[in-house]
Amino acid sequence: MNRKRFRDWGLTVGEMVPGPLNKISDVPGVTVGHATLDDTYHKTGVTVIIPAPGNLFADKLTAAAHVINGFGKTVGTIQLDELGTLETPIALTGTLNVWRIADALAGYTVDRCRAEGLDCRSVNPVVGETNDSDLNRAADRPLGAAHLAEAMANACADFDEGDVGAGKGTVCLGFKGGIGSASRTLTLEGQVYTVGALVQSNFGCRDDLTITGFPAGRMLRAQEAEAPLRESDQGSCMVVIATDLPLTHLQLTRVLHRAVVGLARVGSFIGHGSGDVVLGFTTANRCMRDAGSVRPMLALSDGCMDAAFRAAAESVEEALLNALCTADRVTGNNGRDTVTVPGLSEVLPAILEAMSVGGQTEGGRP
Amino acid sequence: MNRKRFRDWGLTVGEMVPGPLNKISDVPGVTVGHATLDDTYHKTGVTVIIPAPGNLFADKLTAAAHVINGFGKTVGTIQLDELGTLETPIALTGTLNVWRIADALAGYTVDRCRAEGLDCRSVNPVVGETNDSDLNRAADRPLGAAHLAEAMANACADFDEGDVGAGKGTVCLGFKGGIGSASRTLTLEGQVYTVGALVQSNFGCRDDLTITGFPAGRMLRAQEAEAPLRESDQGSCMVVIATDLPLTHLQLTRVLHRAVVGLARVGSFIGHGSGDVVLGFTTANRCMRDAGSVRPMLALSDGCMDAAFRAAAESVEEALLNALCTADRVTGNNGRDTVTVPGLSEVLPAILEAMSVGGQTEGGRP
Amino acid sequence: MNRKRFRDWGLTVGEMVPGPLNKISDVPGVTVGHATLDDTYHKTGVTVIIPAPGNLFADKLTAAAHVINGFGKTVGTIQLDELGTLETPIALTGTLNVWRIADALAGYTVDRCRAEGLDCRSVNPVVGETNDSDLNRAADRPLGAAHLAEAMANACADFDEGDVGAGKGTVCLGFKGGIGSASRTLTLEGQVYTVGALVQSNFGCRDDLTITGFPAGRMLRAQEAEAPLRESDQGSCMVVIATDLPLTHLQLTRVLHRAVVGLARVGSFIGHGSGDVVLGFTTANRCMRDAGSVRPMLALSDGCMDAAFRAAAESVEEALLNALCTADRVTGNNGRDTVTVPGLSEVLPAILEAMSVGGQTEGGRP
Amino acid sequence: MNRKRFRDWGLTVGEMVPGPLNKISDVPGVTVGHATLDDTYHKTGVTVIIPAPGNLFADKLTAAAHVINGFGKTVGTIQLDELGTLETPIALTGTLNVWRIADALAGYTVDRCRAEGLDCRSVNPVVGETNDSDLNRAADRPLGAAHLAEAMANACADFDEGDVGAGKGTVCLGFKGGIGSASRTLTLEGQVYTVGALVQSNFGCRDDLTITGFPAGRMLRAQEAEAPLRESDQGSCMVVIATDLPLTHLQLTRVLHRAVVGLARVGSFIGHGSGDVVLGFTTANRCMRDAGSVRPMLALSDGCMDAAFRAAAESVEEALLNALCTADRVTGNNGRDTVTVPGLSEVLPAILEAMSVGGQTEGGRP
Repeated sequence: MNRKRFRDWGLTVGEMVPGPLNKISDVPGVTVGHATLDDTYHKTGVTVIIPAPGNLFADKLTAAAHVINGFGKTVGTIQLDELGTLETPIALTGTLNVWRIADALAGYTVDRCRAEGLDCRSVNPVVGETNDSDLNRAADRPLGAAHLAEAMANACADFDEGDVGAGKGTVCLGFKGGIGSASRTLTLEGQVYTVGALVQSNFGCRDDLTITGFPAGRMLRAQEAEAPLRESDQGSCMVVIATDLPLTHLQLTRVLHRAVVGLARVGSFIGHGSGDVVLGFTTANRCMRDAGSVRPMLALSDGCMDAAFRAAAESVEEALLNALCTADRVTGNNGRDTVTVPGLSEVLPAILEAMSVGGQTEGGRP
Repeated sequence: MNRKRFRDWGLTVGEMVPGPLNKISDVPGVTVGHATLDDTYHKTGVTVIIPAPGNLFADKLTAAAHVINGFGKTVGTIQLDELGTLETPIALTGTLNVWRIADALAGYTVDRCRAEGLDCRSVNPVVGETNDSDLNRAADRPLGAAHLAEAMANACADFDEGDVGAGKGTVCLGFKGGIGSASRTLTLEGQVYTVGALVQSNFGCRDDLTITGFPAGRMLRAQEAEAPLRESDQGSCMVVIATDLPLTHLQLTRVLHRAVVGLARVGSFIGHGSGDVVLGFTTANRCMRDAGSVRPMLALSDGCMDAAFRAAAESVEEALLNALCTADRVTGNNGRDTVTVPGLSEVLPAILEAMSVGGQTEGGRP
Repeated sequence: MNRKRFRDWGLTVGEMVPGPLNKISDVPGVTVGHATLDDTYHKTGVTVIIPAPGNLFADKLTAAAHVINGFGKTVGTIQLDELGTLETPIALTGTLNVWRIADALAGYTVDRCRAEGLDCRSVNPVVGETNDSDLNRAADRPLGAAHLAEAMANACADFDEGDVGAGKGTVCLGFKGGIGSASRTLTLEGQVYTVGALVQSNFGCRDDLTITGFPAGRMLRAQEAEAPLRESDQGSCMVVIATDLPLTHLQLTRVLHRAVVGLARVGSFIGHGSGDVVLGFTTANRCMRDAGSVRPMLALSDGCMDAAFRAAAESVEEALLNALCTADRVTGNNGRDTVTVPGLSEVLPAILEAMSVGGQTEGGRP
Repeated sequence: MNRKRFRDWGLTVGEMVPGPLNKISDVPGVTVGHATLDDTYHKTGVTVIIPAPGNLFADKLTAAAHVINGFGKTVGTIQLDELGTLETPIALTGTLNVWRIADALAGYTVDRCRAEGLDCRSVNPVVGETNDSDLNRAADRPLGAAHLAEAMANACADFDEGDVGAGKGTVCLGFKGGIGSASRTLTLEGQVYTVGALVQSNFGCRDDLTITGFPAGRMLRAQEAEAPLRESDQGSCMVVIATDLPLTHLQLTRVLHRAVVGLARVGSFIGHGSGDVVLGFTTANRCMRDAGSVRPMLALSDGCMDAAFRAAAESVEEALLNALCTADRVTGNNGRDTVTVPGLSEVLPAILEAMSVGGQTEGGRP
C-alpha cells in the first residue's frame, strides 16, 4: 500500500501552514472511517466523516451545502439549506448506493436516539456520492447498514487516504482517484483555528491534470503515455470542509464557495457530468438540545474571512493531490469489462523531472 | 369509502375551468397509482405519478423543483435544478421510507433500461415525503420495491384520493389529510392546455383551516369542537404540478412558485416544521434519446404566463380541499399511542351551514 | 385625508396582538418618512425606512432579501444575499426613479461618513420600487437627492399611510394602493418582541380582492360596479419586514419567506408582471464597527420560529389592507391619459354589509 | 499605448481555437465600446457590450447572471434570474457610478422606444461595476448619460483592451487591470459556434499572480520586486460571456458557472472583497416582439455542453491575461494620495525567462 502523500514528494500547495496531520481531522473532534468492499465485481465502499462526539441529532452542528454542479444525487441538501444544521455524520459512497446508505444512516440515528431515550421521528441523513461504475458493477447496490456501521466503527483521526472506502472505485484526471485530505491553520487574536478538507475525487480528463500549475496531463500526452480510461470529464467530486472557526451558516456557505478554486487548479473545468458538491460544518456554534429560546453564538468578523477562504482553496487543492498520490493502481470488473486504472505515483517521478527543467513558454503549456 | 369531492358539496375554487376528471391526469399521458400499507402499526404507503408513457430515463421530461420550506427530505432536487429534466416517475411516501423508495425507483430504472438494452449507470430518482409518524410506527420503514411496483401497476387516470397511498397516514389542518388532485384548462390560439396538481397534505393547525376564504377552523374552535391532534403546524406538504404547456425549465419553475398561493389560502402560514416542496414537469419539450446536438423546443410567451400561474394556484387550493373532503377518519397505532383523526366530511355540513349565514364582520373572522 | 385603518372598520386579521402603533415602527428604533411629489404629471415619491439610529454603514444590521417574483428592479439584493448585512436605510420609490434614488442614497452615505471621519469608498444602497406609470409620467424620472433628504428628514414612528411617498402613484386590486403597515408582538421567556411589516402595494386584479377571506372583488363584479383600471395583474409589491428578534441571516430569510402568505390572502396569485420582493432586517445582532475578529450574537431557537412566521404573515396581510383602507381616490395624468383610481374606503361599507349577510356557499364565492 | 496581447508574447491558454479576433465580438453581432474619463482626479469610464443589433427592449435576448461573490453592486440581476431575458446593452463602470449609468441606460431605452413608437414604461438596465477608488476620486460619481452615449457610439468589433473605459481605474493581481477579452470556437454537426468573454479585472494579490500555471507572483516576491499597491484581495471582477450557441436560460447559466475556473487559474481565491459577477447572453433564441403565444427555440443537447464549458473557462482565463498584458502603467490621484500601478508588460520578459528555466519542484512553487 502506497501512502506517500503530496508533500512527501517534496511539493507543497500554497503558503498557509497545515495542521499536525494535514487532514480534516486536525479540526478537533473530527474523525473519519472507511468500509471498503473489494471483491471480483465490486470496488466500492463507504467513508464517514463524524463531525463531533456525542449525539448529533440531539445537539446539532451549524452546517451548509454548496452545489457547484448539481448533476449528482447527494441526499440531504434541502434541509441543510433551510435550517443550516447537520444532525447526522456525513457519509460518502458510490452513486447507486447513496439511498441505501442514507436509509442506513437514518436507521442508525433513530436507533441511537431510542437507546438514549430521545424521540426521533424524522432525520435528515446527509450522503454524498460519486459514480464508481467504471471499476465496479454498480447496479448491484451492495452496500448497506453493515458497511455504514463498519465505517463508523473505524473512524479515527489518522485515517487512510487513496483507494479506500468511498474512494475505492473512483477515477480522477486519468488516474486512480480516491479519498484525500488536507488542512490549514490560521491564528486570530492568539487563537489557532483550523480549516480542513476531505475529497472523494472522481472527475476530469488526464489532459487537464495540473500539479501546482504544471500541465502534467499535457506532458503525458506529448510523451504518448498509455491512453487513460476516460476521454471526457465524467464522474464527480465530493468535497467536505470542516472548521472550528465560529461561523454563521452564511459565512460557512461562503467558505464552501471557495472549494471550486482547488478543483479548477488541479484541472477541472466542472464538466457537465461532474456533479460536484461541497458539504461543510463548523464545530463552533453547536445547537445544544437544552438551549433556551435564545441561544448565544459567535460570528467571525467579515474582515477575517479571507484567511478562511484561502485555507479552503488550498486545502481542497492539496486534498485532491493527496488522493491522487496515495491511490494505487486498481483493476476492477464492472460486469461489462475488466478495467485497470493506474496510480499517479507510477508517473510522478517523470512529472517531477519535467517540472524541474521548465519550458512552459513553448505554447504556454507543453 | 367516502369519495365525495369538494365540488360535490356545491363549492368551487376560483374561476378557471377544470379538465374532465379535475385531476392531474387531465394532462394527457399522466397517470397515478397507489400502494397502501394498512395494518395494526402501519398507515403509510406510496403514490406514484407517472408523467408520460415510455422510458423516462431514455426520453427525459423538462421538469423543475421549488422548495417553499426545505425542512424535508425530498430526494433528487439538485439534479432537477441543474439539468431541468426528470428521468423517473415521481414517488411520494412517508418520511422515513423516502430513501428505500428512492432506492427502489433507481433499481426499477436500472432494470428497465437493462431489459430494453440501454446502459443506465446513474439515475436520479425523485421522491417526496411527508411525516406520517402520528398514525404510523414510522421507524419500521416497512416500504420497498414491492410497494413501488404495486403502485406503478395500479397507475391510471381516474385514481383514488384521500387516505390512500402516500396519504394514508397524513394529517392536515386538524383533519385526516391525504392525496388530492385538481386541474384547470386554458386555451391559447385555439389549443387547449391543462395544468394539474396533486398534493400529499400533512400540515397545518385546525384553527387555521380556511375554506374558500371562510375561517372554518375558528368556527370549530368557537363551537368547542373536540380538540384536534396537533396543536402546532407540523407535517409538511408535497405538491406535484403537471402541464402540457410548452414551457422552458425557467417558466415551469415560475409556475411552481405559485403553488404556495393555494397553500396559504387553505390556512398554511408555512410553519417551521412544514417541509413544503413543489415538483413539476411538462409533457411538452420532451428530450428524446435520438435528438441530435441541437434540439427544437417550444416556449410560452411571457405574456401568456398569467393563465398558467392562476391555474396552478387554483389547482393546488382545490387539490388540498379534495384531499380533505375525500379522506376518511383513520385510527392508527404509532407504537406509542393509539391515535384517531377525523375526516373533514364529518363536520363539513356544519361548516357549510355557517358559511351560508355569514357574520364575518364580527372581529374579521368568527 | 382619510386615515381610517382596517381595524377602525371593526375588522381584524389573524389572532396575534399588534404593537402600540400597529406599524413597523413598533420595532424599537425604526422610523419611516415620506416625500411625495404631487403635481399635474407626477404622482410619485420616496418612502424611507430607517432601521435604527446612528451610522448604518459603520454599524451594520443583519438583513436579508427574498425575491418572490424577480420581474422588478430592486437595487442592492446581491450584497444582502452575500453578506447578510444592511448598510443604508431602505428606500422605496417608483420604478424608473430607482437608480436615481439609489445614487442619492449612496451619496448620502458617502457624505455622512466623510462628515464623521469615516472612509466610505463603496456602499450598497437598498432601494425597492413598484411601477407607478398609470398615474404618473414616469419617464420624467423626477426624483433625486432632495426628495430622499426630505423623506429622511420626515422620518418618525407614527408615519402616514396610504397615497403618500412611494405609494402616491400605486394601484392595488382595482383600488388606490399605497403604503401600509402593521405589526405583531410575541413573548419569549418574558421578553416582548415585535415583528412589523410595511408594504408598497401596486398589484392585483379587482376580481381577486379578498378581505379576510371574503371575496369582495367578485361581489363588486356581480354588482356591476364601475370597471377598474387594470384588467390583469400588473404592478408589483414591495414588502419590508423589521423585527427585534435575535435572528441569524438564515432565520431572517425564513421569516421573509412568509410574506407571500399575506399577499396570497388578499388576492395575489403572484402575477407575471408583479415583481414582488421582500426586504428585512433585525435590530438585534448589529455588527458594530469596533467589534473584534470574533463577535457574539444571538439566535432564536428553531422551535420558536413559528410565532415569528405567523407574525410576518399576519402583519403583511394587515399592512396590505391598511394601505387599501387609507389610500384616497387619486386622479393623475401619465402623459397619455388622465386616469382616476378610487379608494377602497368608498366601497368598503357595501363590502362590510355583504360580509355580514354571508352566502358564500353559492358557488364557493359569490 | 501598449496593445501587445497575451498570445503576442508567444503564450496560449488551453487548447481550443479562438475566433478571428479572439474577442467577445467574434460572436456575430456583438460589439463593444468605451468612454474613458482620464483627468487629474478621475481614472474611470464606461464600457458597453451591445449584444445584437436592433432594439433589445422590443426583441429581447436569452440571458443569465451568476453571482460568484455577491459583495458587489451589479444592477439588474433579479430580473435576469426571473425572466432569463436581457432588454438593454450591458454596461460596466466604477462602483459608485453604477446607479447613474443604470439610470442613463434606462433613459436611453425609454427614449429609443419612444422614437420607435414603442411603449416602454419599465426597463431593466444591466450594469456591472468594480471599485476603482484606488486610482480615482470615486465619490465624485462623474459619469452619466453623455459617457454612456459616447461608449455606445464607439462600439465596434475590434475594440481596445487594457486601461480603457470601465477598466481605466482597475488594479489586478498587483498590476494595472482593465478590460480584456478572448474567444473560443467549437463545431457541432458542421456548424461553427463561438463563446466569447470580456472581463473588467480588479481583483487579487500580486503574490497569487499565476500565468498558465506559473507562479509569477511568488517569483516576483522572491526577487524582491517593488511592493504592489494592495496587500489583500480587494476589488472585484466582472465577467461577460456571449455566445451564439442555442442555449436555454438554464444551459446558459451553467456556462456562466465555469467562469470561476478562469479566475481561479490566474490567481483568484475569490476574496471576501472581490464581488465577482458573471453576466451572459446568447444571440440565439431571441424573443422577437411579434412572436405569438408559443415561440420556437433551440436547445443544445446536454451531451454537447462540455465544449461550451471548456470554452468559457479558457476564454475567461485568457481574457484576464489579455487585460493584464494590454493595460499600461497608470498614475492617479484618488483625492487622498497619488498612486501608481505598473503594467504587467513591464515585468513580463523577466517572468517569461523564469518560466523557461523551470524549477517548480522547489517547494511546489518558487
